[in-house]
Amino acid sequence: MYDRIKGFRDFYPEEMGARRQVIDTVEAAAHCYGFREVGTPALEPAAMYADKSGEEILEELYAFEDRGGRQVALTPELTPTVARMFVARGQELAKPVKWVSTRPFWRYEEPQQGRFREFYQTNVDIFGSADPAADAEILAVAADALTDLGLTAGDFVFRVSHRNILGGLLETFEADVDTQAAVRAVDKRAKVEADEYFALLESAGLTDAQAAEFDGLLEIPEDRLDELTAFAGTERVAEAVENLQAVLDATADFGVREYCTLSLTTARGLDYYTGVVFECFDSTGDVSRSVFGGGRYDDLIEGFGGQPTPAVGVAPGHATLSLLCQRAGVWPAEELATDYYVLQVGETREVAARVARDLRGRGHVVESDIAGRSFGAQLEYADSVNAETVVIVGERDLENGEVTVKDMESGDQTTAPVDAFPGEHDRPTYDDFA
Amino acid sequence: MYDRIKGFRDFYPEEMGARRQVIDTVEAAAHCYGFREVGTPALEPAAMYADKSGEEILEELYAFEDRGGRQVALTPELTPTVARMFVARGQELAKPVKWVSTRPFWRYEEPQQGRFREFYQTNVDIFGSADPAADAEILAVAADALTDLGLTAGDFVFRVSHRNILGGLLETFEADVDTQAAVRAVDKRAKVEADEYFALLESAGLTDAQAAEFDGLLEIPEDRLDELTAFAGTERVAEAVENLQAVLDATADFGVREYCTLSLTTARGLDYYTGVVFECFDSTGDVSRSVFGGGRYDDLIEGFGGQPTPAVGVAPGHATLSLLCQRAGVWPAEELATDYYVLQVGETREVAARVARDLRGRGHVVESDIAGRSFGAQLEYADSVNAETVVIVGERDLENGEVTVKDMESGDQTTAPVDAFPGEHDRPTYDDFA
Repeated sequence: MYDRIKGFRDFYPEEMGARRQVIDTVEAAAHCYGFREVGTPALEPAAMYADKSGEEILEELYAFEDRGGRQVALTPELTPTVARMFVARGQELAKPVKWVSTRPFWRYEEPQQGRFREFYQTNVDIFGSADPAADAEILAVAADALTDLGLTAGDFVFRVSHRNILGGLLETFEADVDTQAAVRAVDKRAKVEADEYFALLESAGLTDAQAAEFDGLLEIPEDRLDELTAFAGTERVAEAVENLQAVLDATADFGVREYCTLSLTTARGLDYYTGVVFECFDSTGDVSRSVFGGGRYDDLIEGFGGQPTPAVGVAPGHATLSLLCQRAGVWPAEELATDYYVLQVGETREVAARVARDLRGRGHVVESDIAGRSFGAQLEYADSVNAETVVIVGERDLENGEVTVKDMESGDQTTAPVDAFPGEHDRPTYDDFA
Repeated sequence: MYDRIKGFRDFYPEEMGARRQVIDTVEAAAHCYGFREVGTPALEPAAMYADKSGEEILEELYAFEDRGGRQVALTPELTPTVARMFVARGQELAKPVKWVSTRPFWRYEEPQQGRFREFYQTNVDIFGSADPAADAEILAVAADALTDLGLTAGDFVFRVSHRNILGGLLETFEADVDTQAAVRAVDKRAKVEADEYFALLESAGLTDAQAAEFDGLLEIPEDRLDELTAFAGTERVAEAVENLQAVLDATADFGVREYCTLSLTTARGLDYYTGVVFECFDSTGDVSRSVFGGGRYDDLIEGFGGQPTPAVGVAPGHATLSLLCQRAGVWPAEELATDYYVLQVGETREVAARVARDLRGRGHVVESDIAGRSFGAQLEYADSVNAETVVIVGERDLENGEVTVKDMESGDQTTAPVDAFPGEHDRPTYDDFA
């Protein structure tokens, strides 16, 4: 009767179970590094997005006026929100502040593969450290999350770049360059035709020849990065090159250097990045879009009215991450798991409920009949939820103080003392009584 | 610079950690019974709420028109959403369907203690069983969740009632009674003055005398429930009394009878309930509001265009639940926990990073310096995150192949072979080397 809204998704248990495993794995990687969960609102003042990016950004958001006349927006990303939270309590927080959370965000965009109007991200951010080790820790958390999911160096790569190399190179040209427009052009480089890309660079202020030269500089390999310093001859580019190399060196100490590669043609679309930026890609190219990205945004906290505070973060998006995991064959099985089904035959609810309760008390997932079903219907249901063991509590068995234990994989069954369920057993199975 | 929106909350790590423990405990109770997580959208068609409750309900919601001209609303509760999802796949789902999820909801209401415009609930629902055992299982999950949190029978009580007893009694009066209005009056009984309550019953169609008689019937104790059957003399009341008694009997088998008490003056505000309803209250009365509630809603699935399907559910709200936990002294400590801080003295990042990485590989929460801080600043930070053990990796110690291990509670420290961190140890501490 009612349809869900376009671009929004319902997750039924099988798919949700796989998603939850992946989310838990990504969050656990961050927790191991001491990132702490924060809880954040779904609505923020629309001005938080419009002030920075212009009113037109609201066209891409779910922005509206609430009943109290407030201009509000469903949060399209977390960074402005955690920046607001940091500013609100910045003085009293022990630095560096390391926050993580997983939740939905919303954008009014045309849905396509791996892109939805409601989408989930795990945001991982550090506030209060400009040290290259902070950038490297963000890369390490992201790499650990992916390898914990079962992905390998053959599956993914982090393409690492630096906004101050891009910006610093752009300002060496004798031209009135709109740096943000040129950076956005670089961000589009792999997504559009060469003609369009160069046209974007030119509309950002470069001449035909300058655009070609600039693009050539972006192709320079890692071992010749210092040529960029020489080319530019500016402190800005020299420092940026040094910073980028220091971050890559730190990733070696952190054990994740093998997942990182220099890629100056990586730019990231968002305006607030200031230093190292990176994007995760499928090494095979089967997932053609960037899987997720991150980077340093040292000016945002000050822009939000706080003390100048360096910051760096990454936000794995779960829609594209699931595409990568599926391509690599490491997406968790979308199936239910049940430890026990306690099957009732006749008026045995009291004993069955006691058995179920005791097994649950040992932490197991235990279902039993709550719908007055027949033996066959219960067994079919137990099978549908992939019960490993079925404990049949029947009136006749109970007269002998016994239950029947059925291993659902083999189909084998035997009797066991009802007191042994669970009795001394942590996890009684067919094998314990066969 | 930006303020968060009224009625919305930011949760910083200390508070969020406590909230997460509580949410995990409630969800784990449901998982043990075989409830499976679902993922659901934040936005639904506004008609999903307005069709049932009238356009005026939208005044209490965050309802708006999206860029595509859709009338949408931020979901104020989960039941209509899971009903929609059940209808969409009803035929292919193994029954009974048992779903659980925790997420925020939104209502445009005046914030007060324990009530916010953005609030979190764990919804637990069963579709496809009319058996009293299903109602009892919902009560059992709720009771297990609360006792797992450390609450006892002295802390909380489930006041159990039945919509068909209320409705059935009302229809025995010679009057043209608006049943839903009368039920809503009963729901307000404890919240308003007696005069107002009786006025509400009278505006629902009862005379002064009938209202008094009806109210008297609601006070009947459990062992005299059959007097209601005799009073009404209708099949509807007889069946409802029998059903309520069967549910209470089933809670005995499920081990949670002690938390349930008959309370016909409990009615629940929502219109869609059809059978057993219940509310959880603080036994001491310190938390004066209902902590949460639930009940049976057998007509909703059919109302949403599905096959007639009985359903029952409960939705612990985390704002009021936290008030109860705090009152009872079982709210988790709002403090960070950290297993190790790996402190770097001099140029020791490579070794420190290796030690940190290996400890993380054993599942521990491990922080290390990522901000180039001094010894003192690192130790202060380690203390601020409640690190249990600090591993000091210093240049001089390393020359001897050693690190210093400091127990942060006692302040004791000793040296240990760097290879023993972690080496064969799962969780090396000061005591292993003292």
